[in-house]
Amino acid sequence: MAAYARATRGLQQLLVLSALGLLATGAPQPPNIVLMLMDDMGWGDLGVYGEPSRETPNLDRMAVEGMLFPNFYSANPLCSPSRAALLTGRLPIRNGFYTSNGHARNAYTPQEIMGGIPNSEHLLPKLLKKAGYTNKIVGKWHLGHRPQFHPLKHGFDEWFGSPNCHFGPYDNKVKPNIPVYRDWEMVGRFYEEFPINLNTGEANLTQLYLQEALDFIRTQHTKKSPFFLYWAIDATHAPVYASRPFLGTSHRGRYGDAVREIDDSVGKILSLLQNLGISKNTFVFFTSDNGAALISAPKEGGSNGPFLCGKQTTFEGGMREPAIAWWPGHIAAGQVSHQLGSIMDLFTTSLSLAGLKPPSDRIIDGLDLLPTMLQGHMMDRPIFYYRGNTLMAVTLGQYKAHFWTWTNSWEEFGQGIDFCPGQNVSGVTTHTQEEHTELPLIFHLGSDPGERFPLSFASSEYQDALSRIIQVVQQHQKSLVPGQPQLNVCNQAVMVSGQSMYAGVCLCLATVTHLPDAGLIQF
Amino acid sequence: MAAYARATRGLQQLLVLSALGLLATGAPQPPNIVLMLMDDMGWGDLGVYGEPSRETPNLDRMAVEGMLFPNFYSANPLCSPSRAALLTGRLPIRNGFYTSNGHARNAYTPQEIMGGIPNSEHLLPKLLKKAGYTNKIVGKWHLGHRPQFHPLKHGFDEWFGSPNCHFGPYDNKVKPNIPVYRDWEMVGRFYEEFPINLNTGEANLTQLYLQEALDFIRTQHTKKSPFFLYWAIDATHAPVYASRPFLGTSHRGRYGDAVREIDDSVGKILSLLQNLGISKNTFVFFTSDNGAALISAPKEGGSNGPFLCGKQTTFEGGMREPAIAWWPGHIAAGQVSHQLGSIMDLFTTSLSLAGLKPPSDRIIDGLDLLPTMLQGHMMDRPIFYYRGNTLMAVTLGQYKAHFWTWTNSWEEFGQGIDFCPGQNVSGVTTHTQEEHTELPLIFHLGSDPGERFPLSFASSEYQDALSRIIQVVQQHQKSLVPGQPQLNVCNQAVMVSGQSMYAGVCLCLATVTHLPDAGLIQF
Repeated sequence: MAAYARATRGLQQLLVLSALGLLATGAPQPPNIVLMLMDDMGWGDLGVYGEPSRETPNLDRMAVEGMLFPNFYSANPLCSPSRAALLTGRLPIRNGFYTSNGHARNAYTPQEIMGGIPNSEHLLPKLLKKAGYTNKIVGKWHLGHRPQFHPLKHGFDEWFGSPNCHFGPYDNKVKPNIPVYRDWEMVGRFYEEFPINLNTGEANLTQLYLQEALDFIRTQHTKKSPFFLYWAIDATHAPVYASRPFLGTSHRGRYGDAVREIDDSVGKILSLLQNLGISKNTFVFFTSDNGAALISAPKEGGSNGPFLCGKQTTFEGGMREPAIAWWPGHIAAGQVSHQLGSIMDLFTTSLSLAGLKPPSDRIIDGLDLLPTMLQGHMMDRPIFYYRGNTLMAVTLGQYKAHFWTWTNSWEEFGQGIDFCPGQNVSGVTTHTQEEHTELPLIFHLGSDPGERFPLSFASSEYQDALSRIIQVVQQHQKSLVPGQPQLNVCNQAVMVSGQSMYAGVCLCLATVTHLPDAGLIQF
Repeated sequence: MAAYARATRGLQQLLVLSALGLLATGAPQPPNIVLMLMDDMGWGDLGVYGEPSRETPNLDRMAVEGMLFPNFYSANPLCSPSRAALLTGRLPIRNGFYTSNGHARNAYTPQEIMGGIPNSEHLLPKLLKKAGYTNKIVGKWHLGHRPQFHPLKHGFDEWFGSPNCHFGPYDNKVKPNIPVYRDWEMVGRFYEEFPINLNTGEANLTQLYLQEALDFIRTQHTKKSPFFLYWAIDATHAPVYASRPFLGTSHRGRYGDAVREIDDSVGKILSLLQNLGISKNTFVFFTSDNGAALISAPKEGGSNGPFLCGKQTTFEGGMREPAIAWWPGHIAAGQVSHQLGSIMDLFTTSLSLAGLKPPSDRIIDGLDLLPTMLQGHMMDRPIFYYRGNTLMAVTLGQYKAHFWTWTNSWEEFGQGIDFCPGQNVSGVTTHTQEEHTELPLIFHLGSDPGERFPLSFASSEYQDALSRIIQVVQQHQKSLVPGQPQLNVCNQAVMVSGQSMYAGVCLCLATVTHLPDAGLIQF
């Protein structure tokens, strides 16, 4: 299947590029690319995805004018790995954004992590430079905070934002002191120069991030060279915030206020593109890094609609994402695509838009979605759901097989940490790590999107789905060369006070270990 | 609040009628009215409400061309009472569609029920005749099967359909022999002259019901007199069925096949209205009688989207319904109204469209939604959630208070009957009837539509909401005159072989008892 996808990709790309007129000599400038990546926003948070308060008129209109993907996935149920996957087009298990020292352990890049995006990975902005793009990241980086991981060392020309989450304020214990950067320079810190009022939820950050986007677009427009804007804003990540004009305006509380401000900002960005007359030459894609953080619901967590559980889990609520493609004049308005899409496809699709080919010296998991978006072409492909280096589940077509089930530990659950509040599917939302590799739990996501009714093991439907899924997993594992794990929790004994973007925060050396056999599924 | 609503209703009606030009001498013909009532279809079953497979292009377009109501409610979580409420504009506790012999007991009109719609109730079609309407019911009646309850005795001019659900086939034990009527005449039975293949799910009934609708519209169009079509089809009620061209076409299985056929039929009806040039003179409303029957999920039950539980319960999944109003040239396209709406509003709104006033000798619970649909007017009003004669919950604004919680009994649950599969909210989805009248559980439906996080009793938000809700409930109960209960299960000792539309099926006399005090909430 993957072979099929690869085989047809070349021809499709030719057709698409030809359709866009990019193959002719003196080809027109490749389109600008705007990737809008939300933080912990859930599939069910947009009106167009059924949020009952329907407070996202701009995003809903974006969908009406573009293509909506109801079956679009993150590459991981957590922030850092998901973002690393987007920018590399590769699963975290390949690009190193995983742990090897804890079975099924999710991990990201807080201050105690020494790891980050390896130099050996080719990031999208660096590749886009070959086609003359000017690249800016606005918002959260999350691919490592030591100097060698700085976004401007990986292809971005500009940065306004932070290397990490806006947890805080700094308390010299568990809350780090999070810097905000403009390009190479640290221009302040969250809660200090960039205040966030935890009581009222007021912060001006989305407005700052919006302004950065608008200014960048205006500036680049005058330069007549293509641009790539990676707009990775974070108002929907706890602590959730909004600026004063939006506070108290949502039917959904503070979380809804943040969504409304984001929606308004998206509207302003799309309007600017239209007003500048460059909407037909700017590809825009909106999605989120992982499912809504139900641990923070309802005040600071969003909605995963009808799906099971949320962030941190490999149920649909953890990894199915809102996704809208918008490119007036190219992507026909009002379409819905059932293509299984992945955040990693944004890497390959962006390269395709730029007339570039993805690196050929490594496995790229992202597919070029242009044939889907422009010609309605459907590609058969699997979706892999990992926690750490553990392949928890796979979706193929309408069928999803769980090899492992786990929400969180009984210990955490006992402390009130609940990844699936109000949801309890017997034998599925387990609080111990349950292995099903010999007899996976399989769900039909069409008739049972909420993963509530496992297929009967004895049914021919189960057997047929399983045999096809096994082939895909075997093929996947056969070719899998795990990257160096970057996110292992540091060994306190080897902590050093290293030079870092945190400027003085104590860091530790990553413990590099090999992928244990437990990460592979034996059939 | 109810007083406020009543006080403003007169003025609004004048304004609306004036806007429609219905007050002038030689006023134009009032608009045709088409009420499309689905059976057990859930809020989450339409693409426009977020169903991930998005297989309802016609209904989604209907919403784009009309007004979508995300906060629209049935009057009961079960079929018969909900339908009686629609046609009388009154809560089942008033019109008699409830039981008095079982606390919080849902009830409907199967063969052993002698009751039905009392003659003292004024049904919508009968009232519409005063304005010259020709009225037809297509599909399920469900307001009683004895001869005195026949729809043609209550204002309908034509009927094609059945007095009851399409359970079967007849087995001389628990499965009744369900007739199909054309007007006064029984023209066959389900599973015999009107086959339903329980193995394949094939039945031609939706096509028959569609044809009846199209024929009626065409015929009435030539007569140049207004018509009322009550299109109460039942393909999404178990046993779920579809005709051969639709079987196997959905990503969602057989249930989805039924939805797709319904969607296709809705599209054909709207197209006919447009092709005949009468769309601007025909008000169409689409909704469902109660939430999706999750006991039949996933094969024969639909989706309630992000809401808790389903049919039979007074959680949002049991009573919040899909709802779309369509009236080109009058209702502006692409609107979403957050008005709390009720199926009973269709009674009052239809009368308003016909230039009629609702009966003044009784309490009518339905509001006229025309000011909402035509001028965006919002009305403050409560939603009452009953099971039998027990007021289980009330919604006022964004707040919902539960006075009683109950899903079903432990005994039923132990037999695998689950009204909330995969959902379990501690202290909320209870299997014993839990009284909370002194300290109701209150949810904020905006930030917590899934009813997972009860407000803290100690919060001022709770206290404020409760004090307002108490006033509304006291006012409601003060004026409540319960109707004669029609749905008490028969006393086997007094069973008689009565004359009935079932033609020979053994029936029993309803036990008429008075409303016990338990039905009232003491504050």
